[in-house]
Amino acid sequence: VSFTCTGFRFAGVASGIKAKKALDLGLLVSDLPAHGAAVFTRNRVVAAPVTVSRKRLAKTGGLVRGIVVNSGNANACTGANGAIDAKAMADRAAEAVDIRPQEMLVASTGVIGVPLPMDHVNSGIEAAAPLLRAGHFDQFARAILTTDRSAKIARRQRELGGSKITLLGCTKGAGMIAPNMATTLSFVVTDAKVNADDLHGALAAASDATYNAMTVDGDTSTNDMILLIANGAAKNRPMGKKTLEQFRETLTELLSELAVALMREAEGVHHVVSVNVVGAKTKASANTIAHCIANSPLVKTAIAGCDPNWGRVLAAAGRAGVPLTAEKLSLRIGDVLVAANGAAVDAAEWESTAQAVMQAAEYAITLDLGLGSERACVLACDLSHEYVSINADYRS
Amino acid sequence: VSFTCTGFRFAGVASGIKAKKALDLGLLVSDLPAHGAAVFTRNRVVAAPVTVSRKRLAKTGGLVRGIVVNSGNANACTGANGAIDAKAMADRAAEAVDIRPQEMLVASTGVIGVPLPMDHVNSGIEAAAPLLRAGHFDQFARAILTTDRSAKIARRQRELGGSKITLLGCTKGAGMIAPNMATTLSFVVTDAKVNADDLHGALAAASDATYNAMTVDGDTSTNDMILLIANGAAKNRPMGKKTLEQFRETLTELLSELAVALMREAEGVHHVVSVNVVGAKTKASANTIAHCIANSPLVKTAIAGCDPNWGRVLAAAGRAGVPLTAEKLSLRIGDVLVAANGAAVDAAEWESTAQAVMQAAEYAITLDLGLGSERACVLACDLSHEYVSINADYRS
Repeated sequence: VSFTCTGFRFAGVASGIKAKKALDLGLLVSDLPAHGAAVFTRNRVVAAPVTVSRKRLAKTGGLVRGIVVNSGNANACTGANGAIDAKAMADRAAEAVDIRPQEMLVASTGVIGVPLPMDHVNSGIEAAAPLLRAGHFDQFARAILTTDRSAKIARRQRELGGSKITLLGCTKGAGMIAPNMATTLSFVVTDAKVNADDLHGALAAASDATYNAMTVDGDTSTNDMILLIANGAAKNRPMGKKTLEQFRETLTELLSELAVALMREAEGVHHVVSVNVVGAKTKASANTIAHCIANSPLVKTAIAGCDPNWGRVLAAAGRAGVPLTAEKLSLRIGDVLVAANGAAVDAAEWESTAQAVMQAAEYAITLDLGLGSERACVLACDLSHEYVSINADYRS
Repeated sequence: VSFTCTGFRFAGVASGIKAKKALDLGLLVSDLPAHGAAVFTRNRVVAAPVTVSRKRLAKTGGLVRGIVVNSGNANACTGANGAIDAKAMADRAAEAVDIRPQEMLVASTGVIGVPLPMDHVNSGIEAAAPLLRAGHFDQFARAILTTDRSAKIARRQRELGGSKITLLGCTKGAGMIAPNMATTLSFVVTDAKVNADDLHGALAAASDATYNAMTVDGDTSTNDMILLIANGAAKNRPMGKKTLEQFRETLTELLSELAVALMREAEGVHHVVSVNVVGAKTKASANTIAHCIANSPLVKTAIAGCDPNWGRVLAAAGRAGVPLTAEKLSLRIGDVLVAANGAAVDAAEWESTAQAVMQAAEYAITLDLGLGSERACVLACDLSHEYVSINADYRS
C-alpha cells in the first residue's frame, strides 16, 4: 500500500523538542487550494494551538492549505506567551512553504505547562519544508506520536462522482492523555472535491460515530483535534446528497479504523470491548448508559481480570442517571446470556463460556434495557496494572 | 471508650453465609419506641433489602425499632425471590426480638446475583437474638464488613437540650463497591429525642456534607444505606432550631469521622486528598468540578505516584462541563502555589516542596477558579496498583 493522496505532500523531522533525535515536527501541505474542517476538544481548558487553528478556520471560512504539528510539548497552560508562540509557529511554517499564513493551522502534543522551545520549532520547520514529498506520510505520522508504540495510518479509496477518490489519515494518542503528554490528534486528507459546509457536516457525523464513541479513561485533553482537508484533485462531480452520504460512510470507516487502532494501543490495554446498550427509549439515554458502563473503574478492572462480573455492569448502568427498570435488564457477554430480567442466569450455563469470551482481544457486551428500540455503542477497554504504571510510576 | 448508647442493644454472629466462621449477621434493636431516618443509594438498580426498608419507613412514617444486616451476600439482582427473602429476613428478626415487623428494617452487602442462603440467615437470627447486649456494638460493627480491614466505629457526646446525648455509629465499605461485594453501609444510633422530620433533615444535611462529598472510584452500589435511629432515652427537651442545629453539627462530625475512616481503608488507598474548589460562581459548579477532579483516573494516578502533575488537575476541571476561564485558574498543592493565571509557576519554586506535600497520607489541593466566592470540597484518593489487583485479579 502506498500512503499517498494526490496533491498532498508531507514531512517529518527530528527538531530537538524531544530527546534522542525522535521525529517531533511534522508538516502537511496541499499543493492546490483546499477546504478544511476540524473538530476540537470540548475541554474548557484549551491549548494555544487549538485557539489559533480554530480562529483561522473561522476567519477563512474553511480555506486550509496545511498544518504544522509538533510532539513533545503541548503548548498548553502556557499563558499569553503560548498564544504568541503558536501563532509564530504557524506563520513560520506558512512562510517556509509559501502559502498564506491564515491557511496554515497548528497543533501540538506533549508535556503541559512548559514553554514551547521556539528555536527547535523554527529550525525544525526550516528542515522539514525542503523534505516535503508525496511519499512521506509515514514520517509525518511518526512525528506526531508521544507515548504511542507505533504510527497509526489508514487509507480508503472509493469510486465517487465519476472519480476514484482517496482518503488518507493518521492518528496518535496512547490514552486520552498520556503521562503528562496530552492529546488525541488525527489528520485526514482527501483528494475529493467537497465544499466546506459538507466537509464539516461529514466530519462531525463521522467523528460522533467513532472518536466520540470511545473512551480510555474518560479524561479529555486540552489539545484534541481532528482535521480533514479536501483539495479536489480527484476532480469528481459536485456531490449530491447520495454521493455525500457515500463520502461520509467512507470517512466513518477510515476514522473507525484509526479509532480502533488507537484503542488497541492505548495505555495498558489488552481488551477492546464494544459496549452495546439496546432496547432503550431514546438514543441519548442508551448513549449515556453506555458511556457510564465504559468509564466504570469496576467494569474496567473486571474486563482486565476476564471476570464475567455482570453485577458491576448492571450497577454502572443504574448510576447513569437515566430511568430504567432493574427487572427488565438482560446482559450478554459475547453471545452468552448471563443475566435476564435483572437476575442471574444459572452460572453453570454460562460461567466458563463467558470467561472464554473475555480472553479475546476484542469482544462485545450487550445490555438490553427492555424499554424500547433505540441503541448506542461505545468502545471501552480494560483498566490494567500497566495503565497505573504508565500514569503513576512516571515522574514529571 | 465504651461503645454504648442508652436503650440500644446489639449482636453479631457467624451464621455461615461467609466461609471461615467470620461474623456475617448483625442485629441492632432499640428497647424503646424510636424514630428512624435513612438515605439510600441513588443507583437505579436497587437491591431487595433497600426496597423493603424504604417501604417500611414510608409506611410507619419513620417509626423504627431495629435492623438486621448480613454481609457476604448483597441480595441484589436476585429477582422476585430476592424481595421475598429480604422481607422474610426482616420479619424473622422482628419475631425473634418481639417487635412489630414493620419497625424492623433490613440491609445486605456482599456478592451480587446469588440467592440469599435463607437457612444460614434464619439460624443466624436465632443465634443473635439472645446475644443482644448494650456492650456488643463492636460485634455488630464487625458483622457488617466485607473486604474492610477492620471495624470502623465513631462516638460523640454533647450537652444538648438539658441532657447529655450520645451518638454511636459504624460503617463499612472498602471501596464504593468491593470486589463483587457491594455497598457502603452506615448505622448510627442516638439516645437524643428528635422527631422524625427533624431526624431526616439532619441526616440529609450531614450525609451531603460527608458521605456524598467523597469518592473512591465514582461507582455507587445497589445497596448503599445510612440509617439513623433516635430513641429519646436521653430525655432532652424538645429540640428548637438552635438545638437541632447543634444536633446536626454533631451528627456531621460523627459521619465525617466515619467517612474519613472509610476512605483511609478504601481499596488500595495510600493518600486521602481533600479536593477544594474555591472562587466559583455557584456552589453547584464548584461541586461538579471538585467531583470531576476527584474521579479523574489521571489525577488519581498522579496522586498515587506523588507526582505534582498540575496540568492533569486543570484538564480535569476543564472537562466538567462548567464554564471557566483557563487564564484565571490557580492551583495549590497543600500551601504550595504551582500554577497561577492558568500557567505554570517556575518549577524551581515549588517542585520539591509540592512533592514533599504529596508524600503525606492526607493533604489538600485547592483550585481557585477566580470567578466568585463559592466553594466545595470532595474527599478523593489515589488509584493504585492495589486497587487494580483487588478488583481485577479477583475471580468471582
